[in-house]
Amino acid sequence: MGSGDPHMKIIHGEAGYILEDVPHFSDYIPNLLTYPNLLRSNPAYSVVKQYFVDADDTVPQKVVVHKSGPRGIHFRRAGPRQKVYFKSDDVLACIVTCGGLCPGLNTVIREIVCGLSYMYGVNKVIGIYGGYRGFYSDNTITLTPKVVNDIHKRGGTILGTSRGGHDTAKIVDSIHDRGINQVYIIGGDGTLRGASVIYEEVRRRCLKVAIAGIPKTIDNDIPVIDRSFGFDSAVEEAQRAINAAHVEAEGAENGIGVVKLMGRYSGFIAMYATLASRDVDCCLIPESPFYLEGKGGLLEFIEKTLEENGHMVIVTAEGAGQDLVTESMQVMNQKDASGNKLLQDVGLWLSHRIKDHFGRKKNTVINLKYIDPTYMIRAIPSNASDNVYCTLLAQSAVHGAMAGYTGFTAGLVNGRHTYIPFNRITESHNQVVITDRMWARLLSSTNQPSFLNPKDDNVAKKTELPIQLLDGQKDEHQSENHIATKS
Amino acid sequence: MGSGDPHMKIIHGEAGYILEDVPHFSDYIPNLLTYPNLLRSNPAYSVVKQYFVDADDTVPQKVVVHKSGPRGIHFRRAGPRQKVYFKSDDVLACIVTCGGLCPGLNTVIREIVCGLSYMYGVNKVIGIYGGYRGFYSDNTITLTPKVVNDIHKRGGTILGTSRGGHDTAKIVDSIHDRGINQVYIIGGDGTLRGASVIYEEVRRRCLKVAIAGIPKTIDNDIPVIDRSFGFDSAVEEAQRAINAAHVEAEGAENGIGVVKLMGRYSGFIAMYATLASRDVDCCLIPESPFYLEGKGGLLEFIEKTLEENGHMVIVTAEGAGQDLVTESMQVMNQKDASGNKLLQDVGLWLSHRIKDHFGRKKNTVINLKYIDPTYMIRAIPSNASDNVYCTLLAQSAVHGAMAGYTGFTAGLVNGRHTYIPFNRITESHNQVVITDRMWARLLSSTNQPSFLNPKDDNVAKKTELPIQLLDGQKDEHQSENHIATKS
Amino acid sequence: MGSGDPHMKIIHGEAGYILEDVPHFSDYIPNLLTYPNLLRSNPAYSVVKQYFVDADDTVPQKVVVHKSGPRGIHFRRAGPRQKVYFKSDDVLACIVTCGGLCPGLNTVIREIVCGLSYMYGVNKVIGIYGGYRGFYSDNTITLTPKVVNDIHKRGGTILGTSRGGHDTAKIVDSIHDRGINQVYIIGGDGTLRGASVIYEEVRRRCLKVAIAGIPKTIDNDIPVIDRSFGFDSAVEEAQRAINAAHVEAEGAENGIGVVKLMGRYSGFIAMYATLASRDVDCCLIPESPFYLEGKGGLLEFIEKTLEENGHMVIVTAEGAGQDLVTESMQVMNQKDASGNKLLQDVGLWLSHRIKDHFGRKKNTVINLKYIDPTYMIRAIPSNASDNVYCTLLAQSAVHGAMAGYTGFTAGLVNGRHTYIPFNRITESHNQVVITDRMWARLLSSTNQPSFLNPKDDNVAKKTELPIQLLDGQKDEHQSENHIATKS
Amino acid sequence: MGSGDPHMKIIHGEAGYILEDVPHFSDYIPNLLTYPNLLRSNPAYSVVKQYFVDADDTVPQKVVVHKSGPRGIHFRRAGPRQKVYFKSDDVLACIVTCGGLCPGLNTVIREIVCGLSYMYGVNKVIGIYGGYRGFYSDNTITLTPKVVNDIHKRGGTILGTSRGGHDTAKIVDSIHDRGINQVYIIGGDGTLRGASVIYEEVRRRCLKVAIAGIPKTIDNDIPVIDRSFGFDSAVEEAQRAINAAHVEAEGAENGIGVVKLMGRYSGFIAMYATLASRDVDCCLIPESPFYLEGKGGLLEFIEKTLEENGHMVIVTAEGAGQDLVTESMQVMNQKDASGNKLLQDVGLWLSHRIKDHFGRKKNTVINLKYIDPTYMIRAIPSNASDNVYCTLLAQSAVHGAMAGYTGFTAGLVNGRHTYIPFNRITESHNQVVITDRMWARLLSSTNQPSFLNPKDDNVAKKTELPIQLLDGQKDEHQSENHIATKS
Repeated sequence: MGSGDPHMKIIHGEAGYILEDVPHFSDYIPNLLTYPNLLRSNPAYSVVKQYFVDADDTVPQKVVVHKSGPRGIHFRRAGPRQKVYFKSDDVLACIVTCGGLCPGLNTVIREIVCGLSYMYGVNKVIGIYGGYRGFYSDNTITLTPKVVNDIHKRGGTILGTSRGGHDTAKIVDSIHDRGINQVYIIGGDGTLRGASVIYEEVRRRCLKVAIAGIPKTIDNDIPVIDRSFGFDSAVEEAQRAINAAHVEAEGAENGIGVVKLMGRYSGFIAMYATLASRDVDCCLIPESPFYLEGKGGLLEFIEKTLEENGHMVIVTAEGAGQDLVTESMQVMNQKDASGNKLLQDVGLWLSHRIKDHFGRKKNTVINLKYIDPTYMIRAIPSNASDNVYCTLLAQSAVHGAMAGYTGFTAGLVNGRHTYIPFNRITESHNQVVITDRMWARLLSSTNQPSFLNPKDDNVAKKTELPIQLLDGQKDEHQSENHIATKS
Repeated sequence: MGSGDPHMKIIHGEAGYILEDVPHFSDYIPNLLTYPNLLRSNPAYSVVKQYFVDADDTVPQKVVVHKSGPRGIHFRRAGPRQKVYFKSDDVLACIVTCGGLCPGLNTVIREIVCGLSYMYGVNKVIGIYGGYRGFYSDNTITLTPKVVNDIHKRGGTILGTSRGGHDTAKIVDSIHDRGINQVYIIGGDGTLRGASVIYEEVRRRCLKVAIAGIPKTIDNDIPVIDRSFGFDSAVEEAQRAINAAHVEAEGAENGIGVVKLMGRYSGFIAMYATLASRDVDCCLIPESPFYLEGKGGLLEFIEKTLEENGHMVIVTAEGAGQDLVTESMQVMNQKDASGNKLLQDVGLWLSHRIKDHFGRKKNTVINLKYIDPTYMIRAIPSNASDNVYCTLLAQSAVHGAMAGYTGFTAGLVNGRHTYIPFNRITESHNQVVITDRMWARLLSSTNQPSFLNPKDDNVAKKTELPIQLLDGQKDEHQSENHIATKS
Repeated sequence: MGSGDPHMKIIHGEAGYILEDVPHFSDYIPNLLTYPNLLRSNPAYSVVKQYFVDADDTVPQKVVVHKSGPRGIHFRRAGPRQKVYFKSDDVLACIVTCGGLCPGLNTVIREIVCGLSYMYGVNKVIGIYGGYRGFYSDNTITLTPKVVNDIHKRGGTILGTSRGGHDTAKIVDSIHDRGINQVYIIGGDGTLRGASVIYEEVRRRCLKVAIAGIPKTIDNDIPVIDRSFGFDSAVEEAQRAINAAHVEAEGAENGIGVVKLMGRYSGFIAMYATLASRDVDCCLIPESPFYLEGKGGLLEFIEKTLEENGHMVIVTAEGAGQDLVTESMQVMNQKDASGNKLLQDVGLWLSHRIKDHFGRKKNTVINLKYIDPTYMIRAIPSNASDNVYCTLLAQSAVHGAMAGYTGFTAGLVNGRHTYIPFNRITESHNQVVITDRMWARLLSSTNQPSFLNPKDDNVAKKTELPIQLLDGQKDEHQSENHIATKS
Repeated sequence: MGSGDPHMKIIHGEAGYILEDVPHFSDYIPNLLTYPNLLRSNPAYSVVKQYFVDADDTVPQKVVVHKSGPRGIHFRRAGPRQKVYFKSDDVLACIVTCGGLCPGLNTVIREIVCGLSYMYGVNKVIGIYGGYRGFYSDNTITLTPKVVNDIHKRGGTILGTSRGGHDTAKIVDSIHDRGINQVYIIGGDGTLRGASVIYEEVRRRCLKVAIAGIPKTIDNDIPVIDRSFGFDSAVEEAQRAINAAHVEAEGAENGIGVVKLMGRYSGFIAMYATLASRDVDCCLIPESPFYLEGKGGLLEFIEKTLEENGHMVIVTAEGAGQDLVTESMQVMNQKDASGNKLLQDVGLWLSHRIKDHFGRKKNTVINLKYIDPTYMIRAIPSNASDNVYCTLLAQSAVHGAMAGYTGFTAGLVNGRHTYIPFNRITESHNQVVITDRMWARLLSSTNQPSFLNPKDDNVAKKTELPIQLLDGQKDEHQSENHIATKS
């Protein structure tokens, strides 16, 4: 946690209770007017007593507790507030989507538009095209409930997306010039770092503009939150590729199916897809190093599995074994640089190495089929579960912005919707690792080696680090989080 | 809570911490031998420090807290223990499935078998055919990892199922005579009440037989736990029916699509399917009474919607409006008893009433299509998310039984796997109602009436009860639970 | 064939060759101008020599031949002609969809619009809303390639549909008043009878208006043509219901799954779905009468199957056993008229009779589940195969209308696209029966009784008729047609 | 046609009628006993008069006819015969699958086993593992209706498959030694060439062993027959990849989606998938050469499409542009041989060239996503339509073998099931080209260039050949065939 952050709001309660709060207009703008929440007169809401969220409702980051442990960090609960800081007619909201595709983007867009309109009577919403750089363009799209009515049934994002293109000053100028006072930004950690800087600049200029983020990553490697939207749909769709790999492997003598799934820094999709499928013999993830040669190595395991079952399915996250891939490439580089780009693909590299290994053995002919379903997974529409999740995230963001909160992302923490300060989402990216417990479950289900019996000391040292990470993780119980909401 | 239950284990900790514990062999059998957990030597588990669950790890039922509220009820955390109370070779486990079909039954069966075998070296597992009454039959099936290898890809249950057939003495005799010492029972609240009685009888006879339950209901109306397995798959599949109703409604003049979904006492599937689909104009659930005629009634809302949009989709849980259906039937009964059975179907009844209403109006011809996808939903294989969930439930149950716990169900509480005493699952069935907050979200998304503006005093009184239930619910924050893990 | 039809064009060639031709503007309008076909200058078409269809290309109705049999009836081959009878700018086309939903309606609409625009430069196309009665309304929709771009991915019809509403004079007035000169009518045999009358009136008034039909029936019971569009998609989707019935039946003791599929006068969908699924034990179709009681009856077969397999799946076309259902109803009528409407549903009736039968037997408890997936099947989008088929049908119709043909439907005959006079499609509806050979294949695959061993003479007489029909069918070899193109 | 083939049976009928017949035991074995067909006593078959196929029923290869053209080539109609040449108990059948995976393999296996058992009382069927080389292994599997009961719901082949491994003498020895007298061989043209040689050797040895083939190729490039099994399923599944490419392309600035589909020598899958999808802007197939640079080239078309629409989807058959790819590789070879293997993939090559082209242009940044769904398509289970088709093919083969035919493949010709001599299936492989008419339909639907405006004379010469092939094709009308059964 950036303890030097001047805007961090830490509130200490009793018995170790710590609230990591999000910014609010009232932090930097004096004498703001407030308005009664329109929802109050919505007949639908009359069915519920205490509809509005209490000011001091919070959600703890840790749930599993020892008898008398401290209460730890809490986040502010999301939801509608008694008072709002905007008049409906005064709101001009915009939505922008950044980064790679992910199932559910269109649902989030749809529900921000519908939430603003149906819940708060806000009818001025525009879409920024093609990510951050769309702020520099005059070309926007007016978003109404009718325009977005069916978009949740389509994959992708109707707003288009791009990476980068972040010029804070130009973006804030554009926001100001257009009279936008609510900015909904959907994107990954890079995008949200950008959103954080935009928020800082907006605050510096003392603008009453709410900057609300909705974290997006198909990899599910965002800290704090239970899972990222689209993850469930991605795991579901990944089953197809695994199933195809299994059929291909079974159909051939010494058939090996290799499937590469998303996950640059974390193996959530690979791990959950493996657990859901039951047809996978080995799952490789970035957090757990492995080695190919020698006793206890992957190649030995492949030989053993082929001997016993006659076929095999390997799932690898795209970020798995990057150290090995890089090493290979450096060796190759000395001879020839032309093939590198392709070989950086761990799936291709692994396929190549396996073929190579068995090619040197005279009496074993293998049939290896490599499947990379990445784009086919990213492009699907979100499933029912993600549709509901996206709806609630969007509504949370809308409630938060209307209530004057800013510089926050909506996020599910221990099954509750919360507002989380940007820095908690963006700062600790590299520390997100697969939960030890879940990984143990997977290992026992695949019976694959732990790869902790390294061929030489050199490897042994490398493997120490991840173990420590896993331990650290254990202490925080954060890992279990992901099990929870996924299962 | 049945305070008179002599076996209830309540442990009071600091600051209001209450542990509702589950029974253990050591509660009624003295001088038991224990054995080191085999998992200790499983190389896979060496990747994780502190793999075994601490004796005092607990999970709170409430997560959202006020600054200094009490800590409330906790449950024992599920997972592998340092010591087990069975030698692998001594275990003879059996599995039985009871009640209606639900996606995921086969996955649970598969993972109990594979979990026992791969994690604990237990290779004697038998399947009881056709529910409880299968205990009286000699006909069982030997379950091995090979036998169950592919069953998770099929709907239904390979063991068959039935309702009722519960004769405690005969069942415990059968268990004893066969030498069974672990009984895994998968079923709904009736089934688990049976399991509870079996456990009591086993305990009375001082048998070292673990009775472990896995709660099953496609309706998701089990108290305490976050969601029941198969629910996610059911909501996903329900989208098909809603989509068909929408297409049919759109294709015709004044087209009305009516879809009946499961949910006798609770409308979870109807509610989530509605939220996920976005094509539904009105959702009716058992927890929220409605009325047809008069101002603010359903028929008025239908008229209004047809006038505005030209078509309409209504989703009703099977238990919605049962008071109205019953009332109708009584009136009809006086004339003619033959048609009752069919009219008890709220979907048919509603369709009939709507047609009747517009039939009396000269100038509006409606086209109503009624879809009942119940069996098509129940029979699907579980989706990826439910597959992972079923796996973890099964593994939890296996860990618990091996560790000497009995008289418990495995269950997810606030995203953590726990052991819950039977009585908590079975006793409070009728109090399970839809969460107020989630229902409010739905109401604002469909814009349907709250039906709280009753046509006469008589109705007004009826509606009071549910409101109170909703309030009570709110106090416990239990409702939010369901949002959490679903979204 | 209505030999009295004054407009029937029969051309006799050599060796028994008979061409049943379709009308053409030149039949009743003198001195028409023609124009070179725009496609001539389409660079795409330069790849093909002899792109335009020869004036004397014909397609025989019979394909299987004996060594020296006659050549029989032929139809005019569909496709682009050298000359067209409209200038692109002069064309104002309209499209109307009538009758029940069927997968592919939107694809046909899309491809008429795109075909007219991309192939012939015709850009004035309007959609008539809600079937024939839409002609009386001022409310139409302008159809452009952009408007229809994505509609083939949705089920239903964007134009809406209805039954009846046919007032020939008013419709032709409307066509004339709006200046429409190409009318594309998509519908079943009732609709095409209407189209035929419209064509007669248009001809009587000497209007240069092309009336082109595209036959639609999900039942596939249109004479002459190989299969109707949407049929393939329907059979595919029907598998879901059968699969669910199978899972439900397998999961219960003496489980019986009953599935009702579309098919009022013919059992194509039931038959093909049964052949595709392999989980069906008995298939009932309108063309093949059956009886319940006594030796060789359905109930005996059910008893036998339950005894051998423990479960059973029955598929029934909606029109199967209507004589029995009607008979039952008449008996019931004497007592009570209230339930009739529901009991006309053969699926409900059959379920009732089976339950009744086993209810009278003390020692057999059955679990019967009835599934009616009709609306869920009708509402799906068309699959890939139907998409291609709809595209070619639409393009055929467009080529035909541009070439001056009228009073025709597009249709696939022996795998070739042809133009067929209306009367051939509409007149012989009731003679369409399931092919003997295909039905024999099904019988041998399900091992169900032939129901030709009737319980009494009365039934025997009833069964004679269908056998004769089958024989007659055999002589024409028409039946095989359907096998062909489906398989 | 190999006129020198001593076993070719050509029978000349009246009016130019030519029957290309298949071999029969009676051609080379004297004094064979025959038996009445068991099906005669099958009650199911009593519903049909003339159930058995007439000896002189034939099916013409050409359907579209001019008024007085010759009748051309015919094939023998498939189906059950009055007499069979095997006693049920004497039959020992074997099944072998060779070559790549294709949807429907398991259905064909299932239906051969069930057809032999249910129709002919044959209960000795074995499966040869892993293609032709399985004949040398002792390891076989006994196939019964129970064993194969559910296999049609799984992709792949339960028998495994391989390429090559053909040693005629050893295979025939193995057949003879095991006492096998019916051999069912499922495979592509290489496999069937092998089957043809096996038949010749069997005949040389005067063995009463029926050699029956079922042609398999997912590419659909088998001459004579309407379509190959699995093709329909493959086109359906290909839609997913195209849809993903479309979503990815739409979501990015200048997004280009490239999808490679199967089709080494013919572009059927690419063409039909393009026609079914409607989201494709350019389809490249082996039969139609293209060029990249210059006026009318592919790169120019891409530039134009991006400018107009902002995104683009390209589908390429794997065999498209192989001359260009080879040329590129030769150039590269001179510098560096390492990357060749990967670049032979036309999809990768094309993606590389497109990126390269736009990389040289300063002001256009493109986002290209390449999808290769090959293995995901091959591994799916067959859809309903293919299930029915596979069933009929298998039953045809069984009827033929029982009736004493040998050296034949089952095949659908103009929608009728026939027996075709091996040489017709295998000899003319390279002449199979996409139908001109269908290709023209595609060109007009995508509006892509015809690539007939070559950049230089050199290319012009190359393109001449295919045009001629297309013309030749046209004369035979064979092309239309494929349209027929697909649409």
